[in-house]
Amino acid sequence: MMHITVWNENRHEKENPDVQKVYPDGIHEAIRSFLTEDYDSVSTAVLDEPEHGLTDDVLDKTDVLIWWGHKAHEEVRDDIAAKVQERVWNGMGLVVLHSGHFSKVFKRLMGTGCDLKWREADEKERIWVVDPTHPLTEGIGSCIELEKEEMYGEHFDIPVPDELVMVSWFEGGEVFRSLCTFRRGSGKIVYFRPGHETYPTYYHPDVQRVIKNAAGWAARKAGERPVYGHHPEPLETISSKEEDE
Amino acid sequence: MMHITVWNENRHEKENPDVQKVYPDGIHEAIRSFLTEDYDSVSTAVLDEPEHGLTDDVLDKTDVLIWWGHKAHEEVRDDIAAKVQERVWNGMGLVVLHSGHFSKVFKRLMGTGCDLKWREADEKERIWVVDPTHPLTEGIGSCIELEKEEMYGEHFDIPVPDELVMVSWFEGGEVFRSLCTFRRGSGKIVYFRPGHETYPTYYHPDVQRVIKNAAGWAARKAGERPVYGHHPEPLETISSKEEDE
Amino acid sequence: MMHITVWNENRHEKENPDVQKVYPDGIHEAIRSFLTEDYDSVSTAVLDEPEHGLTDDVLDKTDVLIWWGHKAHEEVRDDIAAKVQERVWNGMGLVVLHSGHFSKVFKRLMGTGCDLKWREADEKERIWVVDPTHPLTEGIGSCIELEKEEMYGEHFDIPVPDELVMVSWFEGGEVFRSLCTFRRGSGKIVYFRPGHETYPTYYHPDVQRVIKNAAGWAARKAGERPVYGHHPEPLETISSKEEDE
Amino acid sequence: MMHITVWNENRHEKENPDVQKVYPDGIHEAIRSFLTEDYDSVSTAVLDEPEHGLTDDVLDKTDVLIWWGHKAHEEVRDDIAAKVQERVWNGMGLVVLHSGHFSKVFKRLMGTGCDLKWREADEKERIWVVDPTHPLTEGIGSCIELEKEEMYGEHFDIPVPDELVMVSWFEGGEVFRSLCTFRRGSGKIVYFRPGHETYPTYYHPDVQRVIKNAAGWAARKAGERPVYGHHPEPLETISSKEEDE
Repeated sequence: MMHITVWNENRHEKENPDVQKVYPDGIHEAIRSFLTEDYDSVSTAVLDEPEHGLTDDVLDKTDVLIWWGHKAHEEVRDDIAAKVQERVWNGMGLVVLHSGHFSKVFKRLMGTGCDLKWREADEKERIWVVDPTHPLTEGIGSCIELEKEEMYGEHFDIPVPDELVMVSWFEGGEVFRSLCTFRRGSGKIVYFRPGHETYPTYYHPDVQRVIKNAAGWAARKAGERPVYGHHPEPLETISSKEEDE
Repeated sequence: MMHITVWNENRHEKENPDVQKVYPDGIHEAIRSFLTEDYDSVSTAVLDEPEHGLTDDVLDKTDVLIWWGHKAHEEVRDDIAAKVQERVWNGMGLVVLHSGHFSKVFKRLMGTGCDLKWREADEKERIWVVDPTHPLTEGIGSCIELEKEEMYGEHFDIPVPDELVMVSWFEGGEVFRSLCTFRRGSGKIVYFRPGHETYPTYYHPDVQRVIKNAAGWAARKAGERPVYGHHPEPLETISSKEEDE
Repeated sequence: MMHITVWNENRHEKENPDVQKVYPDGIHEAIRSFLTEDYDSVSTAVLDEPEHGLTDDVLDKTDVLIWWGHKAHEEVRDDIAAKVQERVWNGMGLVVLHSGHFSKVFKRLMGTGCDLKWREADEKERIWVVDPTHPLTEGIGSCIELEKEEMYGEHFDIPVPDELVMVSWFEGGEVFRSLCTFRRGSGKIVYFRPGHETYPTYYHPDVQRVIKNAAGWAARKAGERPVYGHHPEPLETISSKEEDE
Repeated sequence: MMHITVWNENRHEKENPDVQKVYPDGIHEAIRSFLTEDYDSVSTAVLDEPEHGLTDDVLDKTDVLIWWGHKAHEEVRDDIAAKVQERVWNGMGLVVLHSGHFSKVFKRLMGTGCDLKWREADEKERIWVVDPTHPLTEGIGSCIELEKEEMYGEHFDIPVPDELVMVSWFEGGEVFRSLCTFRRGSGKIVYFRPGHETYPTYYHPDVQRVIKNAAGWAARKAGERPVYGHHPEPLETISSKEEDE
């Protein structure tokens, strides 16, 4: 059975009453809750647990990791960020949400600075589908409309995505590549933009639909990690060797 | 005027008489030499110089960095690998050759393990053009044939290349994505496979042609680095703000 | 329930005893037969049926069309090729096999000449996985080995594939992009190289596995075709219009 | 010396006084005029000339063809559309502007329906750079702002672009992939969105800069068209043949 772990920094929720009102049990609980509608096995982990809740035991059983972080990226231990990166290489799926673009895990996997433009102005966002063949868009119409969100604007400093699936329009005048996929090693990665902590974005049914789709799409597949390294025996006869003999 | 810096580990050349025979002045000198046929300003830097020869002064003037390393990747200082990565983000071109696939610089920029299969068996390699529109292939026919080379075989654990330009056939039975491009930040990266230290690969005119093309293609362009960060003023009026007033 | 239609030219099988020996009931029957192991609803259609067996009724129920053709591409009616192209735009999956690269349907969808190099010399082929995360490779190891096949060599004159999944090595010295995907409209397309009519390629379990995977991957998804055309009403107020009033 | 041919339908300009006011000598003349600032050899051709002005002599000398059409796509002869497609395959560059998305030439090269949403509402457009490394953006800042333009909205029914370079924001609420590249055969294709006939878009310096960049980028390169077809002689010995002997 596929298992999803929802990781959250969980600091805004403790420190900011406005965020508490929107997500009284934390963003991780809100996400866990709707994922259980489609998936039987979903757990959570937060920054302040030992090893940030990402022990080997937890990662061993995790087929997809969801990641939300913002103000405490620097508090994530380097060795744990490196471990999560390796898990992705070995096939664990990763769904990075919103301000997770600046997380150590995402930056290590992208190889870029992952910077962008941003603004908090209670502005309208429309996220348009540009690849209607993609499984990430199943059940979504031509766009998702959010009444108020934080703005993220281009240039978004990521590698060219393997697949660009949705693009955001912001009332204030900018655009953003909001739903993207990347492969790293045997792992599949989704980045999905919306989800500022002061807005009820994760209660929006279309946002939930995309995250459910992303979990299913990115989940570890049955295949094994390729074999690398020294293969001294050629599969075919080498002519220069024949001549030697 | 565009400036190229050729970086080489330069250890095999000091320690192995077989390599000395092929590259008596080092691989960096062989590469510098043919690049001067097309470019006016080419210098070299090696691992054992202070700061590996990659001081801020050197990097400030470098439009393209060529990278060859193999047995001493671990001796490259982390802070200098990080600095080179940032320079690429800021627009410096990077051409990674052969065993440079395992360099700290390349791995940081790719975000993957960069592993592969390999074998030293004096086997024939043919590198076929799969994108004849690409400037990297100017002056090259349908394939480059090398009598003897080290084998690198798939799976090559890199992100999906932005452009796949050439693919290798090996006599021993494998294939390899041998000429690839990647963008990271404002910088352009080329990976080019051939160039084992015991073979005269860098004297082959087609290999030289590709490296010359790569230097020209990857070189820093005039444009500026995009502006990121907080942009509090929307470009357009936000309707929810109007209502507030 | 998903329905697959296997289309075959079915001429070699009628005219050439060597082919009859390998595929006594036709290539379409061989393919239909193994697909029924995984899919409940699989039918066939051949060139010499009325409308080539591709009536509106047949296409209405087809979620994925498999295509094998070679010597009679020109006998396929232009209006039927155009109809199949439109069906793909509207979400029907398409799996093009081997010499189908030169079919009217594939060329119309690619927009290129789709030419390649070829040779019949009973040579060995190894098809290597270059994207181990792709669902098309589920159940496949690092490569598929075929004792004797026709050679197809680069340059293969297709658009850059959306995804390059496998690359062939040929004993005679060439390489080929053998398993590729493309999106066109709401439809997904797979091209898979092996399958010359004189070899028992379609009895090879790994070849069967890839075609089964391809049918599942390309099958029409639930989503609707996007709405296009005139949308006179803006979603937001246009400032220049406000000024007019 | 590189030669550019600017092709225009030139019907709106003859029939609509509003368009005549903006482009008194036709859109083709406006484009030819600014291209001559950077290129020495630029000519024009229009629909109502014999063979639409696209004779073999004209195409023989054309390194890049610019295409503007809108209301008379159907009047372009099929054989001439096919000829232009073949010229692109053989290395001629093609820059398709605005409503040229629905031209026979572009649709043949894309293999898709090329449809989109549209609206004429005098609305503001901002075209944002999403790939600042691309030569098409040289000399352009982070976005191009046009006071009034026709709206084109997603979904734009094209194949996944080889490179996505700019994305439009429209005041009315939509986004659009506005600057895209494609390879077809040995030819390079640019699609660039803005340029409705009733607006002075082609006098905007940034729009002119992108079209100048596009002409230089897409221009035929020195390389030859690859050789295709029957290659009966293997480059290497085939083992099954050895056994026969």
